[in-house]
Amino acid sequence: MNLPPFLLRNIRPSIPRFLPKQLRTMVKPAARVATQAKDVWSIVNEAAAAATASGNTVINLGQGFFGYNPPQFVLNAAKEALNRVDCNQYSPTQGRLRLRQALSDAYSPFFGRKLDPTTEIVITTGANEGMLSAFMGFVEEGDEVIVMEPFFDQYISNVQMAGGKVVYVPLHPPPKGDTEVSSSDDWTLDLAEFERAITEKTRMVVSLFSPRHNPIGKVFSREELMGIGELCVKHNILILSDEVYDRLYYAPFTRAATLSPEIRDLTITAGSAGKNFYCTGWRVGWLIGRPELIKYAGAAHTRICYSSVSPLQEAVAIGLEQAEKEGFWESSRREMKGKMDRFNEVWNELGLPFTDPEGGYFVLVNMSKVKMPEGYEFPSHVSSRPRDFQLSWFLIKEIGVAAIPPTEFYTEANEKEAENYLRFAVCKDDDVLEAAKEKLRKLKDYI
Amino acid sequence: MNLPPFLLRNIRPSIPRFLPKQLRTMVKPAARVATQAKDVWSIVNEAAAAATASGNTVINLGQGFFGYNPPQFVLNAAKEALNRVDCNQYSPTQGRLRLRQALSDAYSPFFGRKLDPTTEIVITTGANEGMLSAFMGFVEEGDEVIVMEPFFDQYISNVQMAGGKVVYVPLHPPPKGDTEVSSSDDWTLDLAEFERAITEKTRMVVSLFSPRHNPIGKVFSREELMGIGELCVKHNILILSDEVYDRLYYAPFTRAATLSPEIRDLTITAGSAGKNFYCTGWRVGWLIGRPELIKYAGAAHTRICYSSVSPLQEAVAIGLEQAEKEGFWESSRREMKGKMDRFNEVWNELGLPFTDPEGGYFVLVNMSKVKMPEGYEFPSHVSSRPRDFQLSWFLIKEIGVAAIPPTEFYTEANEKEAENYLRFAVCKDDDVLEAAKEKLRKLKDYI
Repeated sequence: MNLPPFLLRNIRPSIPRFLPKQLRTMVKPAARVATQAKDVWSIVNEAAAAATASGNTVINLGQGFFGYNPPQFVLNAAKEALNRVDCNQYSPTQGRLRLRQALSDAYSPFFGRKLDPTTEIVITTGANEGMLSAFMGFVEEGDEVIVMEPFFDQYISNVQMAGGKVVYVPLHPPPKGDTEVSSSDDWTLDLAEFERAITEKTRMVVSLFSPRHNPIGKVFSREELMGIGELCVKHNILILSDEVYDRLYYAPFTRAATLSPEIRDLTITAGSAGKNFYCTGWRVGWLIGRPELIKYAGAAHTRICYSSVSPLQEAVAIGLEQAEKEGFWESSRREMKGKMDRFNEVWNELGLPFTDPEGGYFVLVNMSKVKMPEGYEFPSHVSSRPRDFQLSWFLIKEIGVAAIPPTEFYTEANEKEAENYLRFAVCKDDDVLEAAKEKLRKLKDYI
Repeated sequence: MNLPPFLLRNIRPSIPRFLPKQLRTMVKPAARVATQAKDVWSIVNEAAAAATASGNTVINLGQGFFGYNPPQFVLNAAKEALNRVDCNQYSPTQGRLRLRQALSDAYSPFFGRKLDPTTEIVITTGANEGMLSAFMGFVEEGDEVIVMEPFFDQYISNVQMAGGKVVYVPLHPPPKGDTEVSSSDDWTLDLAEFERAITEKTRMVVSLFSPRHNPIGKVFSREELMGIGELCVKHNILILSDEVYDRLYYAPFTRAATLSPEIRDLTITAGSAGKNFYCTGWRVGWLIGRPELIKYAGAAHTRICYSSVSPLQEAVAIGLEQAEKEGFWESSRREMKGKMDRFNEVWNELGLPFTDPEGGYFVLVNMSKVKMPEGYEFPSHVSSRPRDFQLSWFLIKEIGVAAIPPTEFYTEANEKEAENYLRFAVCKDDDVLEAAKEKLRKLKDYI
């Protein structure tokens, strides 16, 4: 930092660098943020960055950000929006009307009814804040929210921010997952187990209906969904359907809100421009649902972020208006499926079983056959975690590819089920994926 | 909506438009969003839009959005950021390092010490979500938060989202406000009254130290601040200092965090790129404070929005790097003060007293001399509110200028104090302000 001399005089070097202990303990955090285990994204990203800094090239297939830009027609729309005064100032708290109209036009066909842009759609700061808004709108201290396990980690803290208690219901992995390539469809939910998890305090169930379950990529069938949905109607439980990967599915999928009028009336659907248009950093998402639901989720959104980013809302609106005629959805799905298939060739070469996903851009690979050298040293925050954390560390250090250990998406009781898996993201440029495959072939030495 | 015929078949016209009553009552919102009085911004914006639609031209000087674009060097930076893959994907949850470094460089001189960009600054989704993050990080169910009255309405819902209880301490208006032009400095805080509001549950005090109190524009003196700060140290109360108007002050101002090491250690300062660079729709803000405070506010931010908008963070970083050498801060302050002074000429012409602000871009005008015609008809959501709501409505309808009724910033017990005032925003193009003045001269007929 270069400070002019007259300002340097104001810097008091006598201020102690840290608070006196007494005062420090007085700065008491709220319980909802007091426990701060390092999140998996930071662990993996930091390990990859450290390895790169020490001279290894590490290809990061961990977090699901895209390795390329949004399509040009969306970028152009964003740049043009930046020239407009109204696009640089506050948008309406519930979102720009042009975007809500574009979403109504794009999604009414999928929902099988005309979505009212003014009462049935609210724009949020990414799907993440959208889902938090749904929890804040309907979950109170002590209410229970059912989450499928494995789960996306952010759900848990979001439920807890609203004072809710998470109740886990497991998805069981394919019985032959250690030895055979399986479909993500082979992960199963036990409906009786689901119903047993319901209590008088159950207020909401989350993420069940995703076209693509993260991390396993399962697309629930209409029959599975109907079974769950009917239980929600029976017990009056709201459904928060995380459909952020709705443009990337490789098997037919059913939206929760289309199962029956009764299920629809209990369903809030979350969507994401970041996933649709390759711009995870734009923070534009939405919730769709009946007016009675959107009213309160939208009120929570207003109290959380007030409004969402204006110029990029406008760009997403224009993107949605033009995507169909640009042939974008079709090419997007085809390209991602191609990346997935080409990347997974390396697992067939290596003889490592993987869960071929029915949607999205993550593949779960079973690494039980990979033998790490005996006595291999791990830092304590890795050695204290299940085997998949050690596999992740080992691949970063010795192979040069970063992947996510999926036990992070499990409770401690069930993490055994996933300790031999790693999750790889294929939403990267083709040459990056080819370079990663070349590196991964070195795994042969450890099989 | 234009649906292809094969999709239209899926639209079931038999679905009732609204939920059956029984089901509707079962969709119970959380208490934190259950009461939904229409907010003042929507009332004023909608009334202005309705009047415009019916043929009147209404100049909206209500909400504090800018009537012009961000400076070109910041817009250019945003457009360039949109070309970069990393600027379109997730930023680190605590914000882009370049922006945190730029804030450290820009703000260390003001804070009189070197701010550590990695531990003492977190980037938030506007100052609004920043302040919510501070509440979520430190306020628990039943904790009390002291808010100066009049207050910025969003504070209240933010405190309540965290389960906190708002305790109001009044700022007393100038005794001769009905008859004389006063300085915003004439609004006073009774320190004894402040201390009486402190209980064992008091956890935080908010907005006290703004260089520019919204709506009255008061800049607290160093002595006033020190009195308050010392009480906070004595009772171990955190200070949330809303300094979003920190580049727009017309009288010297003191930052809370510079008063003493003890006060600094309890202070979280909120800032806003939207206010600094005329882009209220960008949703980029920040919190600055000691690592022990930022750690937990930052953890809350991660659980609220995960991360904030990437390309616009990059643009704000570049803006901060270049603003000084562009002479932007100086011209920004000079231009806004010029707008304020020229606009306020009309009140002198009309003989209406106003509170000349020491910072920001709002002027409070005392309208007790304005006589609305007897029997003038207001809609019920206006007639049921204090006189300032009726004045606001009357000005929109008869004069063609929209302004904010400030009793919205008061509790019912104290709203009498503000019922003769209206708040006008002058952050608009000069020709718009001149046109507004011309319209406001018609008020002569009612004085």
